[in-house]
Amino acid sequence: MNKSILLLVTLLSLYSCTDTEKTPLEEKDVFNEDYIKTSMIKALEWQEAHPIFAIHPTDWTNGAYYTGVARAHHTTKNMMYMAALKNQAVANNWQPYTRLYHADDVAISYSYLYVAENEKRRNFSDLEPTKKFLDTHLYEDNAWKAGTNRSKEDKTILWWWCDALFMAPPVINLYAKQSEQPEYLDEMHKYYMETYNRLYDKEEKLFARDSRFVWDGDDEDKKEPNGEKVFWSRGNGWVIGGLALLLEDMPEDYKHRDFYVNLYKEMASRILEIQPEDGLWRTSLLSPESYDHGEVSGSAFHTFALAWGINKGLIDKKYTPAVKKAWKAMANCQHDDGRVGWVQNIGAFPEPASKDSYQNFGTGAFLLAGSEILKMR
Amino acid sequence: MNKSILLLVTLLSLYSCTDTEKTPLEEKDVFNEDYIKTSMIKALEWQEAHPIFAIHPTDWTNGAYYTGVARAHHTTKNMMYMAALKNQAVANNWQPYTRLYHADDVAISYSYLYVAENEKRRNFSDLEPTKKFLDTHLYEDNAWKAGTNRSKEDKTILWWWCDALFMAPPVINLYAKQSEQPEYLDEMHKYYMETYNRLYDKEEKLFARDSRFVWDGDDEDKKEPNGEKVFWSRGNGWVIGGLALLLEDMPEDYKHRDFYVNLYKEMASRILEIQPEDGLWRTSLLSPESYDHGEVSGSAFHTFALAWGINKGLIDKKYTPAVKKAWKAMANCQHDDGRVGWVQNIGAFPEPASKDSYQNFGTGAFLLAGSEILKMR
Amino acid sequence: MNKSILLLVTLLSLYSCTDTEKTPLEEKDVFNEDYIKTSMIKALEWQEAHPIFAIHPTDWTNGAYYTGVARAHHTTKNMMYMAALKNQAVANNWQPYTRLYHADDVAISYSYLYVAENEKRRNFSDLEPTKKFLDTHLYEDNAWKAGTNRSKEDKTILWWWCDALFMAPPVINLYAKQSEQPEYLDEMHKYYMETYNRLYDKEEKLFARDSRFVWDGDDEDKKEPNGEKVFWSRGNGWVIGGLALLLEDMPEDYKHRDFYVNLYKEMASRILEIQPEDGLWRTSLLSPESYDHGEVSGSAFHTFALAWGINKGLIDKKYTPAVKKAWKAMANCQHDDGRVGWVQNIGAFPEPASKDSYQNFGTGAFLLAGSEILKMR
Repeated sequence: MNKSILLLVTLLSLYSCTDTEKTPLEEKDVFNEDYIKTSMIKALEWQEAHPIFAIHPTDWTNGAYYTGVARAHHTTKNMMYMAALKNQAVANNWQPYTRLYHADDVAISYSYLYVAENEKRRNFSDLEPTKKFLDTHLYEDNAWKAGTNRSKEDKTILWWWCDALFMAPPVINLYAKQSEQPEYLDEMHKYYMETYNRLYDKEEKLFARDSRFVWDGDDEDKKEPNGEKVFWSRGNGWVIGGLALLLEDMPEDYKHRDFYVNLYKEMASRILEIQPEDGLWRTSLLSPESYDHGEVSGSAFHTFALAWGINKGLIDKKYTPAVKKAWKAMANCQHDDGRVGWVQNIGAFPEPASKDSYQNFGTGAFLLAGSEILKMR
Repeated sequence: MNKSILLLVTLLSLYSCTDTEKTPLEEKDVFNEDYIKTSMIKALEWQEAHPIFAIHPTDWTNGAYYTGVARAHHTTKNMMYMAALKNQAVANNWQPYTRLYHADDVAISYSYLYVAENEKRRNFSDLEPTKKFLDTHLYEDNAWKAGTNRSKEDKTILWWWCDALFMAPPVINLYAKQSEQPEYLDEMHKYYMETYNRLYDKEEKLFARDSRFVWDGDDEDKKEPNGEKVFWSRGNGWVIGGLALLLEDMPEDYKHRDFYVNLYKEMASRILEIQPEDGLWRTSLLSPESYDHGEVSGSAFHTFALAWGINKGLIDKKYTPAVKKAWKAMANCQHDDGRVGWVQNIGAFPEPASKDSYQNFGTGAFLLAGSEILKMR
Repeated sequence: MNKSILLLVTLLSLYSCTDTEKTPLEEKDVFNEDYIKTSMIKALEWQEAHPIFAIHPTDWTNGAYYTGVARAHHTTKNMMYMAALKNQAVANNWQPYTRLYHADDVAISYSYLYVAENEKRRNFSDLEPTKKFLDTHLYEDNAWKAGTNRSKEDKTILWWWCDALFMAPPVINLYAKQSEQPEYLDEMHKYYMETYNRLYDKEEKLFARDSRFVWDGDDEDKKEPNGEKVFWSRGNGWVIGGLALLLEDMPEDYKHRDFYVNLYKEMASRILEIQPEDGLWRTSLLSPESYDHGEVSGSAFHTFALAWGINKGLIDKKYTPAVKKAWKAMANCQHDDGRVGWVQNIGAFPEPASKDSYQNFGTGAFLLAGSEILKMR
């Protein structure tokens, strides 16, 4: 065996996505059921072998990742997803991360709730830490909620950044459903509305990431070079991906359900409208020319949400080709070893990605997308 | 590099075992020393990369797996096995799982005892938790042992299900040997006889899984469609695999050794008698037509026990081809990436498996088999 | 897909390094930037998938490994290194191992210090355990330091074995720099001089591993069969590798810096002088004929230190071909799956290695070497 030839093969096969060395995947390939399932499992295996987080295995990055793993299991029933879910739940002792006032820190509980519901072994799951988190988060006063412990005066609501709408609401919603306590939804709705009122731009039908990006009509308004407002692709992906998760498990007759349905439809329509020609959203939605490449985490959340909506009949089927185009483009961003590349790093506004840049939440978004693409076929 | 071609190769290479796409392995291949060693290491690597358990890393599933890893190390001395064994022992803090009355929860201690004996670094191993478990398990009264805490009246002995004969006795036996306290064996023998008397079918020379499957001669007796008794392949694999482990380390002059030798020989003879043509035992031993495929975990325990017996001179060498046939068939059930497929899920009676179904204890059984097949060559 | 052909390919591709089946890598290959980076990442990925240690994940073996990972990140900024560094730091709860008097047990803190400096997230890093270790280690009296708790009378200094000069000094040095407390260096220097005075052979310009190998001029002096003193390759690798790490972060104007520069230059010159023809140092430096193969951990530390010195201008560039020869030879010892083979096991004097023998600190040394070879190009 000639090692230099092997190496060459390895090196070449790493250049994927938008690289010219690679023959792009064709539509007939990427919508083959075996292809989708294999690419999802390869993404899982690569991510499990390359653990990464911001500050702790229970933080929001794994929260988003294992939400994707849970939905992948929900669709495929492949035991490899459940094994990974159980493994992390037990290793984490079923604990959310530590800041009971911070939406990020309960995102991981989505996976705990999923495992508890789907693996009913005696003395196995422990949802007490999640319950304690949610009760404190929603019902107890604290300096964070009051906004008195923070230097920036704009952080005066519980969920002051749009990402939070992915981190906490779907967990509260799923907990309300599984524990049969719909009253949690009302509390969730109260805080959701605060964020909606602060950050949703009704003209653009997109969310500002936080109040720094909301225009006040003065000279300090943040503008893209082309004069547009700054709407972050992943930030909006968090919101619309979270909406799909919310609606999936929210009671059909919940009194505020229409609000979420309408918001979902508005955003979906806008996101479809601004989809770039090659299928992948740019990291700055209204300034696609800022960086010359698509970004996968935002695109994958959009693809998940849109495919889910078509599957549920909330979006017209005529948009199927647009969603398929997005999936095909994402498939070209997965390395042959399973890594999901072109994911913008942890951040709070548009920044570029690269072929090699990965994050667990990017893999989670890819799995969310795949889990609905599989149902769309 | 054309990704769709690569994918095709990947997909094809996943179809192994009984799939027609695959050219079956030949005997000259699967008894090559390098082949056996490589396939064992690939099984280890795949399993380490895909952790799975029932409820905790210290439960019986890893107990059986790491027993296989220990025996693989014993035969090959490959440091990769010892690295994996040490890693889990330290991660588990040398603890058995928590129910001191339950045989399942001490199975993991087989690996701890093995590591302690073979890696004598100062301040490294800690066998106190194992000793405490065994002393409580064997010598203290409790509601479980008395059968008073259980709803089903048939659970009135300590080891009321046949799997238990793999989980606890080899651990007690090895502890007795290493700690030079043969008196533990007498206590083990007392409980072993309870189970033997309750579950061993002297006519069929096989174990019922538990008393639900023992015939009382009335209409409620569980029967296979063909009218036969239900004898679970893996259940009997637990017993005969456990017997090989027991005899391996039991003193030659132990007063009850003959009982175990005879039981081993009786079962071995019967298991050989009912081996299917293709080498792999069906999950229901006396109703092979129930499912149209062999099952690997039971087959691997049988193969281990039979190969061990031939290597020890307890079984006539004329049965070597039968054992080789089983190993060859199992080798065809291993995926190219190392996964040992066709393993029935966690259960308590015959159920089907699939090409992709794996469990850590199935991998452990595969390693046990390989460790004796290597010596048989 | 024919499994036996696939297996053959696998088996063949495992025979690397000095095996005849393999076409050796050529210089144009191994100094290609992509090749070096890929081989380093493959080494990381393989090692992460195959954890190994002496007695605990925080012991010196991982200490040396993650020092290599840290320097690989320093040179390449590849996020995969940082992910691995953070992962182990959090899993280890930022703790050194337990013996506060033992240099080995603080080696892991090199990686903690590196992560803390390069990943400044709030409430993330915790250097208190490292500070507590260093303060106790350097400033408190104890029986170990006094030599009164040890049977062998030669263990009467803090760092009585030469490996210690890699384990503790670079950590103390980096801590002094990052915490802006240069006074730690003086304490380090005091103990360094004790070891230097006891174990450095000024004629041979090499370190004895410990006082057992220092000649007293009597019949009990340990000699190689050829009559030479026993100088262990890895032992000297620990020292010169540690010197490169020390000098990298020691203030230019530190009063004892010249001592370290001179010691580094003396050793470097001697190590270059005795480099074998094929580039790889033998495990017994002055008795290369003892074993018929190069050893990678010692060679990798030497290569790291020498390449570092050329890059820093401390060694004449005319030695570049010698260092390149060493790297090329090491590259041939890496398996195609990433494993760095031909690493002598844990030990204290020259012993043979094999194609398959690996250790995490061997991988760490390989990464150290690669991180400087990359800069040398």
